[in-house]
Amino acid sequence: MPGSTFGERFKMTTFGESHGEAIGVIIEGVTPGLELNEDDIQVQMDRRKPGQSSVTTPRKEYDKVRILSGVFEGRTTGTPLSVMLNNTDMRPSAYDDIKQMYRPGHADFSYDQKYGIRDYRGSGRASGRETAARVAAGAVARKLLERRGVSVMAYTTEVAGIRCEAFHPDAIERNPVRACDPEAAAKMIERIEQLAAEGDSCGGIVECRISGAATGLGEPVFDKLDADLAKAMLSIGAIKGIEFGTGFQAASMLGSEHNDQMDENGFITNHAGGVIGGISTGADIIFRVVVKPTSSISKPQRTVDTEGNEREITTIGRHDPCICPRVVPVIEAMACMVIEDHYKRQAALLY
Amino acid sequence: MPGSTFGERFKMTTFGESHGEAIGVIIEGVTPGLELNEDDIQVQMDRRKPGQSSVTTPRKEYDKVRILSGVFEGRTTGTPLSVMLNNTDMRPSAYDDIKQMYRPGHADFSYDQKYGIRDYRGSGRASGRETAARVAAGAVARKLLERRGVSVMAYTTEVAGIRCEAFHPDAIERNPVRACDPEAAAKMIERIEQLAAEGDSCGGIVECRISGAATGLGEPVFDKLDADLAKAMLSIGAIKGIEFGTGFQAASMLGSEHNDQMDENGFITNHAGGVIGGISTGADIIFRVVVKPTSSISKPQRTVDTEGNEREITTIGRHDPCICPRVVPVIEAMACMVIEDHYKRQAALLY
Amino acid sequence: MPGSTFGERFKMTTFGESHGEAIGVIIEGVTPGLELNEDDIQVQMDRRKPGQSSVTTPRKEYDKVRILSGVFEGRTTGTPLSVMLNNTDMRPSAYDDIKQMYRPGHADFSYDQKYGIRDYRGSGRASGRETAARVAAGAVARKLLERRGVSVMAYTTEVAGIRCEAFHPDAIERNPVRACDPEAAAKMIERIEQLAAEGDSCGGIVECRISGAATGLGEPVFDKLDADLAKAMLSIGAIKGIEFGTGFQAASMLGSEHNDQMDENGFITNHAGGVIGGISTGADIIFRVVVKPTSSISKPQRTVDTEGNEREITTIGRHDPCICPRVVPVIEAMACMVIEDHYKRQAALLY
Amino acid sequence: MPGSTFGERFKMTTFGESHGEAIGVIIEGVTPGLELNEDDIQVQMDRRKPGQSSVTTPRKEYDKVRILSGVFEGRTTGTPLSVMLNNTDMRPSAYDDIKQMYRPGHADFSYDQKYGIRDYRGSGRASGRETAARVAAGAVARKLLERRGVSVMAYTTEVAGIRCEAFHPDAIERNPVRACDPEAAAKMIERIEQLAAEGDSCGGIVECRISGAATGLGEPVFDKLDADLAKAMLSIGAIKGIEFGTGFQAASMLGSEHNDQMDENGFITNHAGGVIGGISTGADIIFRVVVKPTSSISKPQRTVDTEGNEREITTIGRHDPCICPRVVPVIEAMACMVIEDHYKRQAALLY
Repeated sequence: MPGSTFGERFKMTTFGESHGEAIGVIIEGVTPGLELNEDDIQVQMDRRKPGQSSVTTPRKEYDKVRILSGVFEGRTTGTPLSVMLNNTDMRPSAYDDIKQMYRPGHADFSYDQKYGIRDYRGSGRASGRETAARVAAGAVARKLLERRGVSVMAYTTEVAGIRCEAFHPDAIERNPVRACDPEAAAKMIERIEQLAAEGDSCGGIVECRISGAATGLGEPVFDKLDADLAKAMLSIGAIKGIEFGTGFQAASMLGSEHNDQMDENGFITNHAGGVIGGISTGADIIFRVVVKPTSSISKPQRTVDTEGNEREITTIGRHDPCICPRVVPVIEAMACMVIEDHYKRQAALLY
Repeated sequence: MPGSTFGERFKMTTFGESHGEAIGVIIEGVTPGLELNEDDIQVQMDRRKPGQSSVTTPRKEYDKVRILSGVFEGRTTGTPLSVMLNNTDMRPSAYDDIKQMYRPGHADFSYDQKYGIRDYRGSGRASGRETAARVAAGAVARKLLERRGVSVMAYTTEVAGIRCEAFHPDAIERNPVRACDPEAAAKMIERIEQLAAEGDSCGGIVECRISGAATGLGEPVFDKLDADLAKAMLSIGAIKGIEFGTGFQAASMLGSEHNDQMDENGFITNHAGGVIGGISTGADIIFRVVVKPTSSISKPQRTVDTEGNEREITTIGRHDPCICPRVVPVIEAMACMVIEDHYKRQAALLY
Repeated sequence: MPGSTFGERFKMTTFGESHGEAIGVIIEGVTPGLELNEDDIQVQMDRRKPGQSSVTTPRKEYDKVRILSGVFEGRTTGTPLSVMLNNTDMRPSAYDDIKQMYRPGHADFSYDQKYGIRDYRGSGRASGRETAARVAAGAVARKLLERRGVSVMAYTTEVAGIRCEAFHPDAIERNPVRACDPEAAAKMIERIEQLAAEGDSCGGIVECRISGAATGLGEPVFDKLDADLAKAMLSIGAIKGIEFGTGFQAASMLGSEHNDQMDENGFITNHAGGVIGGISTGADIIFRVVVKPTSSISKPQRTVDTEGNEREITTIGRHDPCICPRVVPVIEAMACMVIEDHYKRQAALLY
Repeated sequence: MPGSTFGERFKMTTFGESHGEAIGVIIEGVTPGLELNEDDIQVQMDRRKPGQSSVTTPRKEYDKVRILSGVFEGRTTGTPLSVMLNNTDMRPSAYDDIKQMYRPGHADFSYDQKYGIRDYRGSGRASGRETAARVAAGAVARKLLERRGVSVMAYTTEVAGIRCEAFHPDAIERNPVRACDPEAAAKMIERIEQLAAEGDSCGGIVECRISGAATGLGEPVFDKLDADLAKAMLSIGAIKGIEFGTGFQAASMLGSEHNDQMDENGFITNHAGGVIGGISTGADIIFRVVVKPTSSISKPQRTVDTEGNEREITTIGRHDPCICPRVVPVIEAMACMVIEDHYKRQAALLY
């Protein structure tokens, strides 16, 4: 399939460019009979939307969702559920400049190489705007998971080298970086505002924790649960790496340290991050992803134009100086998709 | 698809348990007319086989490949190419003990939870033996990539906390840990032998470098090239994380540092690891994976039996104290699969 | 995939219920750089739209297409092309009656059995209205096929037992039943009008001819070209059978009669219908489908209500007394999808 | 996927050429815990094997099945079940002649056009021998269906223009043409023997009846149950058409005749063949396929060689003068695959 479809039994297909008429998603495999309305989706869209605080872009997108099909009298019908969002804050003129030049860190060059044509307005299909459609689909998956007793929660643990030292789940949605440590959050915000003033940006790390998932999810050997989560996360443009459980730290651990031993209460430790042999163990599924610094900065940078001539570029625009807070709901959405899909695959196997 | 198939246009489906009669793979989508014989595959199998040195398991597997279909008069026919390997060194008696107990770090518990039944002989389907089939398929992909001028090379960069400080490609296949720095290799070997003597194991890091790949590979938005590589790598049992380019280091970098600027010779840096917006840029594709310490150790560990009673287990057997050297060809095989598949997908798009 | 996606490398995913807010389609894998505008699609939509003549339903649908993504400055970008059609002539009150009763020939009962919930307004997802989205996707495939020199043409050959005795391609779009024989067409129209007046309906046969397709299309063994065309056709609600070349007549033929012998000009006959071993031979690809009589009739019929009680039902509404003329563009659209998809698959194989 | 995989949640991937070393199949998605041994498969293989009677080829194939994986201690494990059959009666010398010439009715020409290379020994991948692997997979599906109370039965209803006039299920396996009417069977046998003596062959019709299948199977809109069955059947090389229920006869029926009305006992008629709107209704699923005359005949025919020169060809060999009796178990196998797969998909939807 040519790249815009994700999932097997719970599946989404997305469309839309940043500055096209609309973006949207078709969600297939939704269990019939689920109570669902636009507010259920909107609440997640609002967590992702720009303009939430000083650390996010002041740009406005029209993220008011419309359900076009698949819901009847307030319940899902089992047929394709489609959700659309119009694009409204379109100022293509602001992008005239990048028509001829490749912005460093952006997909301008690689899109031209792949397709030979590029919708240069606001990154087109490569824009982070595309992830809004994922959040809509994830909101539906989340509702199904809630019925199963599964919760999915992501949060920032590091920004620009500043790390969270504590874990306060209640604090996450109360600070604009969505960090799990309010003290670290304050420092992060200060640093982000400073970088924004300098026209620069910064990266960070987001952790995701899935609790309550059944044992037995994941399909050996290629569709392992962690393999599918890894693909889901790396499919988000800003994410450049993922690790499960102890992750890269395992490189300097011994087997006698890393193995999760068991007693009659279950696993004593969770170094594996809740997945062994590609199958969920019942322990919390835990992974971390690295978020690269936002590519759009207003400092001058070296680049070439579409003819190959050297140029200097200064991206003017309204951009997130740090993507972490807004990528949190996208990560959750993708995680929800993967988990719900694997519940359905497991049902098919056992039935 | 239920998990044993990988790829779309260049695609493999594998079967086989560690101690069953045979393992094998069906490879679909092989370009017709390619010269291919069993030796082309055997040479890669031999790189993966056990018993190569003091740092790998002395166990013998019968990794003599047989091509059963898809090749006629020395050339591929475009029909399914199937490769089979018989299992010979089967000593099921050695595994009687684990029939009733869950080995820490192994998939014993999760398989029982998923399937309600488990071929406990030598980890069954969850065994690393399964990766031999991948290497066979990867050998075919590699031959096609060679015609395209693409090379794929993986190597150990860290073992048990010991890091390579130099990069000597010629040294890689000449030391038994497949490290890119012969001095570090010597220390790694010493450490691994010591741990083996103690009945323990250790983890490490393997880096992979793909050179010569065309620009334009990868399918936005979900089947990004890095997303597919991430899935491929995490589908290998021992791998718990992946990072591209600067990877997790990007969390503490600024946009002005991380962005790969361009001049008339192309990209000046390669922090992105050769993939931007999910599409290859023409720069080397570089990623690192973390390999967990081998789960099988002979130190006593706490666990439970299939009835839930607490037990102590000591895994006796012949195991790799460090998986890094033998996972190198598996990583290369999976990378070859992904790259070749995306070449074919790109051909379909543009045609 | 849960049923609303068709194709592999040229692929569509559709959504929408008859009386929901909109229907639409996401088309993936469109070759970038193709000149395309809404009129290219509209012209095919207009061939399918209701209210074209006395032999089709007088109902109005709002079949004005909108392209929401995937086209930039008049050319396709290679990213998902989405097309939407709003539904306007929605009179749900007309369907109150069928909320509680299962209409004979309709999918009311089977949808309730499958999903436990049913959007009863105008057949919901099971409505023929869904095929409008297919026609939109097919229009894009057709444009790509035109560049390859492939033409796809369907036409009615039989209605209510009246058969075409001649083949005049120019006549097809000039008569409202889209029959290939204008004399037979006149009789068909008369018969259809008579049946409509009686509140009844009739079936027929449509033939499809694909000319100019390359040799070598189709993927043994399961994705044979004729197998994929058969699936495509049977996925249209009203179609209950398909035959290629001599079709069912082959049951009483001998091998010496049926085999297509060759001379230096190619195949002397075309009993196979242009596909042998599942692969196109270069001869015209020819198949016929049977179209069942429209299920909606205004004669009283026996049925049960959702409680299982016996009832009598008389479907009031504006329905096509014969589906043949309006299914012709749907058949063409599906055929275009299959052929274009297989061109792309063949490119992937050979590249 | 490149053509050798069928099914989604119950899925097979086949390999093998007629005169290669072996053929086989990997079956994924098998419910774990099913009692299964080689005899369960062998019994179906024996129904398909050649040399059963005067109306089938006297050729011997070595159809002794071996299960290589996926079964442990007599029960399926849920991991890929692989079945292999060695090829033994390989006489490649008998095929030297066809190396240079295209046999009419065979896929020789189309394979050369597609792949540019052809394993000409006994039709290679295009051989009917390939269907043996399908029968093996179907035998596993059948066992799962038996637990669900579903039975699948196919039988010859017409050969060389001779039609069955009665339906005696018990007679089917007792006559060598597998006809449902023993009197017609006698005439069919006589006619086939006569044609065989003349070096000719004949076609026929096979009907398939699936009883006991649940309501609700099939996935609108593209993966309709009848659409998937149609694809499954047309993927069998010799089959050139399919019709459900009243089939092509519906072309001359009225809506008031064709609609299946209901009373409190369910459907009064079954003109739809058990599928409405692509979803099973609970009535028997009934379809018929047309089987073309065997392509291999010993009468001289006109053809061209691989250089395009006109030639005369006389196929010498041991061929089935009528494929009907041996295609019956293949049809059943494919039908079992489709039904079992849709049971699993429905479980995924509702779960």
